[in-house]
Parts: sequence; structure tokens; C-alpha cells
Amino acid sequence: MSVLVVGSVAFDTIRTPFGTATGVLGGSANYFSVAASFFTDVRLVAVVGEDFPEEHLEFLRRRGVDLRGLQRVPGKTFRWVGEYGFDFNEAKTLDTQLNVFADFAPKIPEDFRESEVVFLANIDPDLQRDVLRQVRRPALVAADTMNYWIARKPDALRQTLSMVDALVINDAETRQLANEQSLVRAARTIQAWGPRILIVKRGEYGALLCADGEWFSAPALPLESVQDPTGAGDCFAGGAVGYLASRMQFDVAHLRQAMIVGSVMASFNVEAFSLDRLRTLTMAEIEARFATFRRLVHFDDLAVRPGAVR
Amino acid sequence: MSVLVVGSVAFDTIRTPFGTATGVLGGSANYFSVAASFFTDVRLVAVVGEDFPEEHLEFLRRRGVDLRGLQRVPGKTFRWVGEYGFDFNEAKTLDTQLNVFADFAPKIPEDFRESEVVFLANIDPDLQRDVLRQVRRPALVAADTMNYWIARKPDALRQTLSMVDALVINDAETRQLANEQSLVRAARTIQAWGPRILIVKRGEYGALLCADGEWFSAPALPLESVQDPTGAGDCFAGGAVGYLASRMQFDVAHLRQAMIVGSVMASFNVEAFSLDRLRTLTMAEIEARFATFRRLVHFDDLAVRPGAVR
Repeated sequence: MSVLVVGSVAFDTIRTPFGTATGVLGGSANYFSVAASFFTDVRLVAVVGEDFPEEHLEFLRRRGVDLRGLQRVPGKTFRWVGEYGFDFNEAKTLDTQLNVFADFAPKIPEDFRESEVVFLANIDPDLQRDVLRQVRRPALVAADTMNYWIARKPDALRQTLSMVDALVINDAETRQLANEQSLVRAARTIQAWGPRILIVKRGEYGALLCADGEWFSAPALPLESVQDPTGAGDCFAGGAVGYLASRMQFDVAHLRQAMIVGSVMASFNVEAFSLDRLRTLTMAEIEARFATFRRLVHFDDLAVRPGAVR
Repeated sequence: MSVLVVGSVAFDTIRTPFGTATGVLGGSANYFSVAASFFTDVRLVAVVGEDFPEEHLEFLRRRGVDLRGLQRVPGKTFRWVGEYGFDFNEAKTLDTQLNVFADFAPKIPEDFRESEVVFLANIDPDLQRDVLRQVRRPALVAADTMNYWIARKPDALRQTLSMVDALVINDAETRQLANEQSLVRAARTIQAWGPRILIVKRGEYGALLCADGEWFSAPALPLESVQDPTGAGDCFAGGAVGYLASRMQFDVAHLRQAMIVGSVMASFNVEAFSLDRLRTLTMAEIEARFATFRRLVHFDDLAVRPGAVR
């Protein structure tokens, strides 16, 4: 089955206490596409400028990403400059040059309109709805958003949410969106607006799923060395949504597995700058790390010997 | 089996966005004792002033806590005033009156010196070592500490750590203690100083265990309403160490269970101010919530049908 993703493709410049990467491949749709491509066919809709090099396109093609929806227009590609301190949970944006992304109007190619699964990466909620108007009855629509849209376009965002099955969002933004400190109550509020599935990303603390009245907690793997957290959330979404598209089952049992697949992809991605770790990643490594996540949370039931626990 | 705990007993005044509690029962040793008392015999060594009321003593006695090590001296009991904003992971201390706690010199009653398990709550590391000099060959020594001692008494703390089997500490303090951003590397550094077992508390994000080269991630339960996070870490330690004392097995399988028992006790404690939730808690409720934690992290293995995941 195939996933349609609409979002940004960018050049990132990233500074961390451990190093700097300049003008590397980035953007939400890009991270999502590459992560999802390990599990399903991916159709990318985004925009780049004339400066976008063939080598990046070739990398995406090699990963099986269908680029017929990638518009190339006069001008420069979106550029983002960000910095992380020792707290890798929060990026400080130093510079944003929207360039060709400023006038992005997603146009879904005819062949993409029957996509079974749609992922709306973090773009203007009005554009997210534009995409949904162009597709025909996807089985699952998932979307990301961020504080910028929550603060500036709350009504447009609410309209989008009413058309979305799954919202993927970080924890501070969950609280901000629902205007509610308790995540349990925030989930209830947001789900009443539309999304049956709420996925709360928590950076180095993992992610939470709330769906059909059940909660699931996905851990993050303690890592020896995190090089660059950029794109971790989009790789998480790409792994999770890509896995769901490969199964086309959206019950809680499959959602739980998808949360772990997403966590696996994010855990690899942060091990190197940009998408570099995913360039060499193999399915055997993914399966081995899935097993590592299983051991990470395994515990035995309490023995029911009378008197053992009083 | 029995646990000896040495730490503070206090009157707390707590302000949260949802309410205030004035002069309620608090203190690390107190929270620990009550939580541990659900699983094992508890021996409390602490100091209170002349103002400490009989009703609190009666509550502890009813929970089976042996109070022969509780010194009552002239003066006032330790008082702490703290405030939480919407971020319940961090308390702001508004006032601390050490009172009789300023001159606390733990004296372990003869009958307590054979205790199999010892928990050194967050007190001066010199006092923690004083306690260890007074006990005979405990099977497990666990200790807590905090940023105050890490900054002011690093050498004394290192000496204490060399005598400790398990360190229970929050995540910012783990990084501060090891002077290392990566928790994986920080764990390695700290374990080289003595503790075989490192337990990293992460507030609403749960807790991590590192022991014998394995990591275990315990989730926190998303709660409808958190009233008061005070004492959550000590209740976690009380549940975990109390459970271990009930089994007297300290292998990783039992440590994993202990992490969940601790998480269960912390999850109950935060549902009401002070220790109030634990006053009415039953073992049936503890077992039911243990099962809830199991469901919270449960996920199925990836099916191994060829082609299902490519």
C-alpha cells in the first residue's frame, strides 16, 4: 500500500555541542519519506528550488520514493538554521528562509489521489485541508502540527483536525492545543474535535498513544551518543505511519506496534546528522532494534504466591 | 525481611495551581516508609521536634512502621514550603526551616543493625556513611541524593557511592553528578564509582534502570488528575526497595518488577496531597494498577510473515 506525504523539503544547518552540519538534506516530508520507505511505497508532494541537487533526488528515488509530486520552481529551496544546547529536546531556530516554500500550494498528481494513507506534515492547516480536498477516501489520514499554527490559526487547525484520524504532536503542544495541563484531559478534548488517534511525542522520553480509550507508552532507547535530534519526530511518524500502511490495519494492537516501529526509526535517525544514518540502515538492523525495545520494557507479572506480597 | 530507612520527617506546605496544603505530613523517610510498608517491615530512623503530633505516629504504627529509631528532641520539626507551577516535574522551594533536622545524627538502634536492606534517603552523604558504619552487612544498600550535595560535597558523596549497591537519583542530577550529557555514559561513570544498580527518576516520564549492562524503561501512568507530586520519588523508592526486601532477590528480573511496583506507588501518591492517597490504598488496588502498567507498555512482536515487512 502507499503513503502520500505532503510537507517540506529543506536544507538544514544544524549546530549542536558536538558538531555542525551545513546545508544538509532536511525537511519534514523528507525525513518522513525516507523512514516510511522501509515499510511501504511513498509518494512525496513538496516543493524545491533550482538549487536542489540531483544527488538528493537520486537518494530518494533509490529509497523507492515516488517524486512525481515534487515541484521544482524558480528560486531557492527552504533553508533552516537551528541550534541545540545540551537539552536535545528543544531546537532554537536561528534563521528561517522560506524561499520557494512560502508560496507552496500542494498539487496532488492524479495518480496519487487514490493513496490509501495520507500524512500531512507540519504545514499551514489551510494547506493541509487543501490536500484532503484533492484525495479520495484515504483509509487513514494522519497529521502533524506545531505551536506556530496553534497560536496563529486555531480555527483553521480545528477544521483540519475534524478531518484527521490521527494527530501526531509533541507534548507541550498537546497541552497548548487543548489548553489543559493534564495529558489525559487534553487527549479527551482533542479527540472530541476529530482525531480518533492521538500520538504525543516526548523527545528523549519516548511517545504516548491514546486511542479507543487505551493508553500506550513507547519508551525511547537510551543511546550512547545522540548526534542530531533534527527530524526525529518526522522519522517517528514515517516509521509508524509507514508500518500502518504496510498492514492497513489501524486497531490498537497495530497502533502499538507502529509506535515502536516509529521509535526504532527515530532512534536510528538521531545517531547521525541529517538523514545519514538512514542511508545505510538495513531491515535486519530495524528488526534487531525492535527486539531491543521489547527487552527495554519487559517485566514479569508479580508471582501470585500467597503471602509473597502482602 | 526488613528495610531500614534513614531520612527526614517533615511538615510540608505545598502550593499547586490546584490547591494548597498547609503543614501536612511529609519528609523523604516518611514517604518511603509508608510506601515500603505495603511490602515489608520498615524501620524508620529520623528526628522530629516536640510539635510532632501523636496522630502521625499512630498512622505510621498502623502501617507497621517500627518507630524505635525515631528521635524526638526539643525544638520544632523540619518544615518545608514548596510550590509547583504547571510543570509538576520541578518544585520551587519557598522556605526551608531545618529546625531539629539541622543537628540530626542518625543513631541506629541495636535491634535495627541487622537490617537486610538499607535505604539512605536524601541527607548529607557524611551522615549516610555514618549509618552504614552502624549496620552489619546488609544485603542491599540503596541511596538517594540531590543537586545540593553533588555541588557542595562531591568528595563525601563519592565516598558514600563506593559503599552503595543502588543509587536512586533524578535525571538532571544523574547528568550533573557524572558531568556527562549522555545518560548511557553517565550511568557507566557512576557505576564505576560503586553502585551496581542505577535508577534514574524522570518525574512524569517514568524511570530508567541500568544494571548488569541492561536498561529497563518504566513508564509513568498518564493520570486524569495529579494533585501533588511531592514525595513521588520517595514513594517510588519505597515501593521498589520495599518490594525487593520482600523477595530478597536483586537480579535484573526482580529489579524490573521493583521498578514497576515503585511506579505504581508513585502513581497513587500523586493523586492526593501529602500521603493521603496511601492512607486508604489497598493491596488489591496495587495489584490492579500493576496490571494497568503491564497493558500500558504491551506490544506484540512483529509478525515474521515473509514480505509483511520489507
